[in-house]
Amino acid sequence: MADEKQDGKGGAGSQPAGERLTYEDAGVDYDRIDPLKVLAQRAARTTGASLNGAGVREVAASRGESAYVMDIGDAYLASITECLGTKALVADALRDASGRTWYDHIAQDTIATAVNDIVTVGARPLSIHAYWAAGSSDWFDDVERMNDLVAGWKAACDVLGVAWGGGETPCLTGVVEEGAIDLAASCVGIIRPKSRLTLGEDLAAGDAIVLLESSGIHANGLTLARKLAERLPEGYATSLPGGRMYGEALLDPTVLYPPVTEAVFQTGIDLRYVANITGHGWRKVMRHPGSFTYRITDVPSVPDVLEFMVDETRQTPEEAYGSLNMGAGFALFVRPDDGDAAVACAEAKGVRAWVAGVVEDGPRQVVIEPLDVTLAGERLALRD
Amino acid sequence: MADEKQDGKGGAGSQPAGERLTYEDAGVDYDRIDPLKVLAQRAARTTGASLNGAGVREVAASRGESAYVMDIGDAYLASITECLGTKALVADALRDASGRTWYDHIAQDTIATAVNDIVTVGARPLSIHAYWAAGSSDWFDDVERMNDLVAGWKAACDVLGVAWGGGETPCLTGVVEEGAIDLAASCVGIIRPKSRLTLGEDLAAGDAIVLLESSGIHANGLTLARKLAERLPEGYATSLPGGRMYGEALLDPTVLYPPVTEAVFQTGIDLRYVANITGHGWRKVMRHPGSFTYRITDVPSVPDVLEFMVDETRQTPEEAYGSLNMGAGFALFVRPDDGDAAVACAEAKGVRAWVAGVVEDGPRQVVIEPLDVTLAGERLALRD
Repeated sequence: MADEKQDGKGGAGSQPAGERLTYEDAGVDYDRIDPLKVLAQRAARTTGASLNGAGVREVAASRGESAYVMDIGDAYLASITECLGTKALVADALRDASGRTWYDHIAQDTIATAVNDIVTVGARPLSIHAYWAAGSSDWFDDVERMNDLVAGWKAACDVLGVAWGGGETPCLTGVVEEGAIDLAASCVGIIRPKSRLTLGEDLAAGDAIVLLESSGIHANGLTLARKLAERLPEGYATSLPGGRMYGEALLDPTVLYPPVTEAVFQTGIDLRYVANITGHGWRKVMRHPGSFTYRITDVPSVPDVLEFMVDETRQTPEEAYGSLNMGAGFALFVRPDDGDAAVACAEAKGVRAWVAGVVEDGPRQVVIEPLDVTLAGERLALRD
Repeated sequence: MADEKQDGKGGAGSQPAGERLTYEDAGVDYDRIDPLKVLAQRAARTTGASLNGAGVREVAASRGESAYVMDIGDAYLASITECLGTKALVADALRDASGRTWYDHIAQDTIATAVNDIVTVGARPLSIHAYWAAGSSDWFDDVERMNDLVAGWKAACDVLGVAWGGGETPCLTGVVEEGAIDLAASCVGIIRPKSRLTLGEDLAAGDAIVLLESSGIHANGLTLARKLAERLPEGYATSLPGGRMYGEALLDPTVLYPPVTEAVFQTGIDLRYVANITGHGWRKVMRHPGSFTYRITDVPSVPDVLEFMVDETRQTPEEAYGSLNMGAGFALFVRPDDGDAAVACAEAKGVRAWVAGVVEDGPRQVVIEPLDVTLAGERLALRD
């Protein structure tokens, strides 16, 4: 049960420009949603035993990880369902000002939410189902937007080498807002050979932390981004220091990381753990349940759109790195001597990467040395 | 891409009581949604070849069927994502009058949309992911409703022997309507031994058609049901002839058919084809692409809630049987001599069934002899 896409009602839009605007101010109300998640997780845990009669068994250790894993004999299967969140609202808002729909980017974002999670357990993604639920039949009248959504979805599948197996395209008047669309993706992956399974049992002090660049905000932090747009005089049309529009920069599509993990597996590098850096920002670096300190010695440059957001909302570094990806969208944990080889795999796939730090024994926390920032392990359920 | 859940805006609510109200009047506007589906299906078809590098290949013949199938070597995998549609709005509307949430039933309906489809290709469902997207954090404040949703979801998983693998519980303000929830389920299944694969290649004239009872409206036709409620003076509280409230009867949960298909497979009966009777009603009996006439000689009694709807909306039998399940929710097609054995499997699982007719060579149509009704194969894409 992922906890990164919660949006909520916030009164932040009525705050005067220039005042602080935190992730929490923007209306992300975890406290109210957590009880359902806990209830659901507890109930879900009791169902795994049912599988035994099918010659299949659940890999119980996957329950806290990003995808669910079953042992079917000569392979493991992984599966996941993920939603985009509210990023499509940014595309809709920018349509007139930019003269394009951006739904090709939105499609890639949606697929990325699923595939970037499923590869963390060692899976090769095989098939994707689309879930596109519109609020009214009008949605389907915009031919350019439909074409962009389909083209972007197909292009992402082609890059990933996955089959677009089908999907559901309902029109749900009364459930989805008129003019809006609820976008999600489900994915099935295979872990074969079974040695590819990556659940973190072998993570150890001394292991290298390799970070992979992000392209921008990806699909997390959009509630804050939208609230900020509401109080900017020019909204999404505000120019960033580099000259691009704020809204346009928000819509840079999420990096697809599976080609990198696949290259790493093919090279034979022992992946000790993998974390997709999404909601909760760099706190996801300590996603592993163990008692480790993650010492970061090399931080990336921050994408201009994130730097702008942090400046405008007056976030502290702790808040920013604790809620946004700040330039690093994915983390590989490898043996001490494998860092450079993992970096080479990523760069060969066109994704900038660097050995960013080291795993140490110690309290569960992320220490970002160059910024003098420590993110402490806290109550938020990072494992969901 | 299933086409059964389209809802839409209809002006039927303003029609005077007692006038005709057809499925089309209720706002199901397929013409506007079809272009997206066609675009998506064409694009999706081109992606299957990508799988070959993974030691996996797509079963291309599954593209027109209810679930996507891949060959992974010693087994086939099937996958699907399905949404409930708008049935939860009925539960919400009935909450105060009935003193209960009905979300345990709604949970079963949502799961049924996925599992009743995935078993049609011969799969045993293994795992289910929940997709519960609420429109505001308020949704999660109703503890009784949350408990019912979780309990119903778990109970359905237990009946099916599937693992509840996880899910996504986002709050999507601005995308999902405030107070509403968008419910969907994705499912992964395994077809092992591979001989269980059921794609209809062997369907032949003379085969028996076995129909399985429905419990009521299931999850299709709810747009019409809701429009009808709007124009009834007492709305969902209207008494049916048998004494139950109209709304309460609408909320009888969808029958879970996988225990029946599993029993049929275990018995060794050769399933020639399987059809889940959902949107388009009994036209789904001719879901198979071949040129066959399906002659029905034995029709079930109609659930009182459907009989009431048909009477109140003045539907012709052609309209009723062409859009609603009218008492039959699932169809098995078996060898001429296997009808009684298939019926016995269903009855052993507590689902009433009967040999209802026969497959004949002839134009693609469903001939319902006792009612003198013929449903002709027409332009609607029944294979989606």
